[in-house]
Amino acid sequence: MPYIFVQMWSGKTEDQKRQLAKAITDAMENIGKVTRENVWVVFEDVEKSNWAIGGQLASEMSKG
Amino acid sequence: MPYIFVQMWSGKTEDQKRQLAKAITDAMENIGKVTRENVWVVFEDVEKSNWAIGGQLASEMSKG
Amino acid sequence: MPYIFVQMWSGKTEDQKRQLAKAITDAMENIGKVTRENVWVVFEDVEKSNWAIGGQLASEMSKG
Amino acid sequence: MPYIFVQMWSGKTEDQKRQLAKAITDAMENIGKVTRENVWVVFEDVEKSNWAIGGQLASEMSKG
Amino acid sequence: MPYIFVQMWSGKTEDQKRQLAKAITDAMENIGKVTRENVWVVFEDVEKSNWAIGGQLASEMSKG
Amino acid sequence: MPYIFVQMWSGKTEDQKRQLAKAITDAMENIGKVTRENVWVVFEDVEKSNWAIGGQLASEMSKG
Repeated sequence: MPYIFVQMWSGKTEDQKRQLAKAITDAMENIGKVTRENVWVVFEDVEKSNWAIGGQLASEMSKG
Repeated sequence: MPYIFVQMWSGKTEDQKRQLAKAITDAMENIGKVTRENVWVVFEDVEKSNWAIGGQLASEMSKG
Repeated sequence: MPYIFVQMWSGKTEDQKRQLAKAITDAMENIGKVTRENVWVVFEDVEKSNWAIGGQLASEMSKG
Repeated sequence: MPYIFVQMWSGKTEDQKRQLAKAITDAMENIGKVTRENVWVVFEDVEKSNWAIGGQLASEMSKG
Repeated sequence: MPYIFVQMWSGKTEDQKRQLAKAITDAMENIGKVTRENVWVVFEDVEKSNWAIGGQLASEMSKG
Repeated sequence: MPYIFVQMWSGKTEDQKRQLAKAITDAMENIGKVTRENVWVVFEDVEKSNWAIGGQLASEMSKG
């Protein structure tokens, strides 16, 4: 019954999410030995202006 | 002081959320014996394209 | 497919959790119109020393 | 490696987030003694209609 | 910068977590095109008595 | 009504959490302009063996 919550910066395509969900679920099935149908993967797209690293918003990080 | 985080597929109406919040809070008050005012319920609407079950995006599940 | 995450102060009994899970799931089924089997409720017991309100740890709140 | 997840009602400006991220990271560095670069702060703006207190949606709280 | 939070039933070994972390990070790097060092995977072991499915605690599910 | 969830490696003292909670709440009050009493900070201590960075468990990172 794993629940996997994935927060990433916005911009991933639906195809990337499809592949990520498959890869994570494969790992849970093969390594974690859980039934495939019982794996939930929830994605959350986070804007860079909502994600700070080292005290700085990621949306402002490469500004000069 | 319960904090309840509810992730559901998008599409619930405000009226459904109103009723869900009330029902969950009632349960916390009556069963959990907590003060009603101290119950927080936070809803998050998740697109089906952001929710995978069994390694497949829910947005693509009933496609043929 | 609702996922409900419940953080409460430690001390709830298994019987309270059983009743809370049932009540929350009933609400999701009746109000949210989701299939009962697809409702996951995950409880997390949090020590009062890990929960601050108004800037004060709950474990120290009624001290004097 | 602290991960800090901040849920607030929508309406905060980017400048407020910038200052909040800095203040939280300062605290983690000075009090928690962690390397500044290893502090992640993720903000989530939550609509009042998705946040219930005491069983009532915040979007409806001051209605008369 | 992906943050991945994995809730599973207690009982996974450290070796399983090591392999899961590697597999998830590989996927993030290869499919999500993120820098490997920026992938955080946080595991949480959840007791079956804290996880309800369909309104029933998982700890009580196969009790005849 | 901010809810702040802080995941850190185990080992922080109660005094550090007390100071962190105060500093974070001060920031929410002064910068976020929210009522102090409405700020909840929840800490979660995470073992290094449950936290992977770059695909490696933190508990095994400085092993030679």
